[in-house]
Amino acid sequence: MSQRTHHCGNIREEQVGEVVSLKGWVQRRRDLGQVVFLDLRDRSGIVQVVFSPEVNKDALAIADRVRNEYVLELEGKVVKRDPSTVNEKLETGTIEIHATSVTILNASKSLPFQIEADTDASEDIRLKYRYLDLRRPDMQETMILRHKTTKLIRDFLDEKAFLEIETPMLTKSTPEGARDYLVPSRVHHGEFYALPQSPQLFKQMLMVSGFERYFQVVRCFRDEDLRADRQPEFTQVDIETSFMDKEELLAMAEEMMAKVLKELKGVEVTTPFPRLTYDEAMNRFGSDKPDVRFDMELVELSEIVKDANFKVFQGAIAGGGIVKGLNLKGGADKLSRKEIDGLTDFVKQYGAKGLAWLKVEEDGLKGPIAKFFEEDVQAAMKAALNAEAGDLLFFGADKHQVVFDSLGALRLRFGKEFGLIDETKFNFLWVVDFPLVEYDEAAKRYVALHHPFTSPRQEDLGLLETDPASVRANAYDLVLNGYELGGGSQRIYQRNVQEQMFKALGFTEEQAKEEFGFLLEAFEYGTPPHGGIAFGLDRLVMLLAGRTNLRDTIAFPKTASASDLLTDAPGEVSVEQLIDLNLSIIGKKVERTEG
Amino acid sequence: MSQRTHHCGNIREEQVGEVVSLKGWVQRRRDLGQVVFLDLRDRSGIVQVVFSPEVNKDALAIADRVRNEYVLELEGKVVKRDPSTVNEKLETGTIEIHATSVTILNASKSLPFQIEADTDASEDIRLKYRYLDLRRPDMQETMILRHKTTKLIRDFLDEKAFLEIETPMLTKSTPEGARDYLVPSRVHHGEFYALPQSPQLFKQMLMVSGFERYFQVVRCFRDEDLRADRQPEFTQVDIETSFMDKEELLAMAEEMMAKVLKELKGVEVTTPFPRLTYDEAMNRFGSDKPDVRFDMELVELSEIVKDANFKVFQGAIAGGGIVKGLNLKGGADKLSRKEIDGLTDFVKQYGAKGLAWLKVEEDGLKGPIAKFFEEDVQAAMKAALNAEAGDLLFFGADKHQVVFDSLGALRLRFGKEFGLIDETKFNFLWVVDFPLVEYDEAAKRYVALHHPFTSPRQEDLGLLETDPASVRANAYDLVLNGYELGGGSQRIYQRNVQEQMFKALGFTEEQAKEEFGFLLEAFEYGTPPHGGIAFGLDRLVMLLAGRTNLRDTIAFPKTASASDLLTDAPGEVSVEQLIDLNLSIIGKKVERTEG
Repeated sequence: MSQRTHHCGNIREEQVGEVVSLKGWVQRRRDLGQVVFLDLRDRSGIVQVVFSPEVNKDALAIADRVRNEYVLELEGKVVKRDPSTVNEKLETGTIEIHATSVTILNASKSLPFQIEADTDASEDIRLKYRYLDLRRPDMQETMILRHKTTKLIRDFLDEKAFLEIETPMLTKSTPEGARDYLVPSRVHHGEFYALPQSPQLFKQMLMVSGFERYFQVVRCFRDEDLRADRQPEFTQVDIETSFMDKEELLAMAEEMMAKVLKELKGVEVTTPFPRLTYDEAMNRFGSDKPDVRFDMELVELSEIVKDANFKVFQGAIAGGGIVKGLNLKGGADKLSRKEIDGLTDFVKQYGAKGLAWLKVEEDGLKGPIAKFFEEDVQAAMKAALNAEAGDLLFFGADKHQVVFDSLGALRLRFGKEFGLIDETKFNFLWVVDFPLVEYDEAAKRYVALHHPFTSPRQEDLGLLETDPASVRANAYDLVLNGYELGGGSQRIYQRNVQEQMFKALGFTEEQAKEEFGFLLEAFEYGTPPHGGIAFGLDRLVMLLAGRTNLRDTIAFPKTASASDLLTDAPGEVSVEQLIDLNLSIIGKKVERTEG
Repeated sequence: MSQRTHHCGNIREEQVGEVVSLKGWVQRRRDLGQVVFLDLRDRSGIVQVVFSPEVNKDALAIADRVRNEYVLELEGKVVKRDPSTVNEKLETGTIEIHATSVTILNASKSLPFQIEADTDASEDIRLKYRYLDLRRPDMQETMILRHKTTKLIRDFLDEKAFLEIETPMLTKSTPEGARDYLVPSRVHHGEFYALPQSPQLFKQMLMVSGFERYFQVVRCFRDEDLRADRQPEFTQVDIETSFMDKEELLAMAEEMMAKVLKELKGVEVTTPFPRLTYDEAMNRFGSDKPDVRFDMELVELSEIVKDANFKVFQGAIAGGGIVKGLNLKGGADKLSRKEIDGLTDFVKQYGAKGLAWLKVEEDGLKGPIAKFFEEDVQAAMKAALNAEAGDLLFFGADKHQVVFDSLGALRLRFGKEFGLIDETKFNFLWVVDFPLVEYDEAAKRYVALHHPFTSPRQEDLGLLETDPASVRANAYDLVLNGYELGGGSQRIYQRNVQEQMFKALGFTEEQAKEEFGFLLEAFEYGTPPHGGIAFGLDRLVMLLAGRTNLRDTIAFPKTASASDLLTDAPGEVSVEQLIDLNLSIIGKKVERTEG
């Protein structure tokens, strides 16, 4: 092989007259009879190469045989193009290469899809031929953006004296949190490792070790049923600090995000980021990760409608629930009656029993439920919802969570459907003061909203024994454009508080000791106050890249059924491998389905 | 908490007069009646803090109660020490802090071992209390060195336009190589993922994708029986490039290593690194990862001794083997007869049947086998071995591999035992021209010496079908001080060559297609020539840190039986978890043993 002198995309008029040696792929080939034009592509971009009998007949003969995606090595002279043939779409469009020699390094069959930004190939085909999909310019750009994002974050944290320290992938399964991926041990009969859902306990141990500032860009795993924005393995930027309080940590995270946005997107974001309490986020936006790029807040109406003779509302309030409204400005013309009815099915996914609505007309509120409200109540509703003629009002009446979930989802749907969202914005906010625990109806006990190592707010500590549900956590989530980008907390660092927490979660003393004995013990050897945060890297890159599919930010992602369509993982293994692990498979194999 | 103004280890005379706020651990406490001295430690180092009734009585009362490893927050004034009390061992030894206030942030029980560089705690205790072990200054330094090494490598590769791209941890089990760690799939009944032994195929796919320059600092896994320098999970610096030939890749790797040594150790290493062919390394040093910090080469004696009437030597040569010698200069005085005999057991571990030896005295060679050699043969042996009076000569006579292994190990043992090795040296070399395959007696077929994707040398390609054992690989290992630090190769990138390789390894066409079909297919869509290398990060850090135990370079390592003594992983899991995975455990649980 001859040594490459230039990259295709970087050649400019300054190189005119030079002889260059290039390597790359044939993006496009045009045969103009006597002359062949090839667009040669490498990672840097594209340049046009001309083969003609005047320059070199042998090269032309070879160029005659090449097809799209052939891999070539070639030499030629950089020539300024005639002004009439300048291609303004290409950065190299004012020059071309007159090829004096060419070698075919490898051939290519016809591709299952073309290497171009907009592909109509199905995602399954793209994943099966991921090595071709990743050739497409938008995928190349996303992977480069991912590299730059990670680099920038690492450099930032290094400058702040953080040490990147690796934690194990083969860890212990713990009963809290999502479902673990397990790894059978060959040496320890019948025992298993678990792949980490996060390095939570290890990073806390590093604080006990006195490293003070730790970070890691680290793979984490959750064996959960997947949604569009979930992957079985995902990457997080994991941070933990000692002696740094919440305010210092949040300010540092803001500085980091502002730097990412400025350097990678040229966007200035204002710090400090706004903060909402969990209660406020739920009440105003029906979500603990509100998209605040648009308004349309949920409005509390319980007081106003509590005496109206409408059973649905009265029942909700009597049952300890609430009534909230949402105003789709000018919505009367946007949605047909049929579409409005269709929304009932939508909110039912969130547990709502139905969806009440009213149209605002010049002469009052109209709709099937209008008759239940006296004129003064209608006036108060209109005032609260800032309603005017042409608006369409929706109501949720149920338990708090159902109203939040259903109206919150409806708000987001309207925001997207009616273009209310300024897609150029990067809108950060913190959600703080989360509840420490929530009651799990299935498990019939409290479970930690974040994880059992989150510190209660100091002033709520006394309530941990008597009224766990009312204890607020010293926790904070970073939200960007309606996505939870990260979450963190100050941690419990005192044995007695951690024991109280385990007790509140229904652990017996023995259980706590068996599962987390080393943590409790560590707290007795000079554990410093500490806290930390973790950011979802995949999601951050997705938002920076302006994409909506998490899989597009990961080089080799899994499908919704956790399969890798390229290598066909998971797969069967040999009987010998199972015997080594002392395992047998229960039941017979069922046909696998791809989802 | 008050905000920290300084770090303990950084305070100097320039700060005299300033009021500082510090946080850290009590390294040592001395009570001198009216006055208490505390050495306060944080990640940066140690500073002496004085509590006295003149400065603050309340602070003194608290200081009276603290013990080693208590976590404190304190304020005080920086004061210049009296010249007679200067501590030259401390960088902060010319000043001390006169404490005006102190708060105990957390207490500590008595420790199982002291926080100091030289500990006599057993490794099991250190691993069980890893969070304390990591407080020791040498462990802190090693983790900081690891962070710096990784950062430097990442920055270097970024500057060379490499992209860090993450590859999956949940991959497919393949039949070649070491034993995989398996991960059962919950969704796909009876199927398993495998944790990667390396991202080999994924990084090759990234080359097919046109990324041209990829790297990753990546966790890899091997479920093998462990030795001192092996861990079930380890980290490698994984590199792959397109269009870069072997010479360019080796030069870049040398530049990177030279930079690591210079910036982190202040050591200048000369490039290019020396190269040895595999054959030369084996013949001269009995190892494919020779430690060339000392000489004592293996000397070929087959020609010289072939006619001597010594059955052991004759038999070895007749059986197609060799006779080699080793000269321990001045060894006659260093080893007793009993010690010499003891070496026989040592070489038997490497398959040798015995160990012949001769002493060199003024009047000739002495020892039990001396009588078998005529005077001219003795003279020729002495000349070949450069022997003089006082030397001790050892001989191996067996099949090639046995002689290499046993004399190679003996050479290393002598080197270490008799201080022949200059421990300050960093001695890099490349070993090249490895055999492509070797015959596996157990499997009764050829197996790849590196992996099945390694390219044969172009000139040996024709032999792949007729005489696989004689084909040399286009592969290269980087050796540092007797450790294999990295290995790489140019890869096969043409479907027909890869098919030939699989055939040579005994794969049927169907097997090749089933296991590696996607690779074979990818080669038909414009795969560029590519190659790469991977370096063992744990091992590199171990050598840079001047340590000999790989576990000391990993924050949370596993024991020789692949256990984590801190968290007690692996562990049992619930029946529900097993049912979720459709698995049952064969046989009953046996008592686990820790090794």
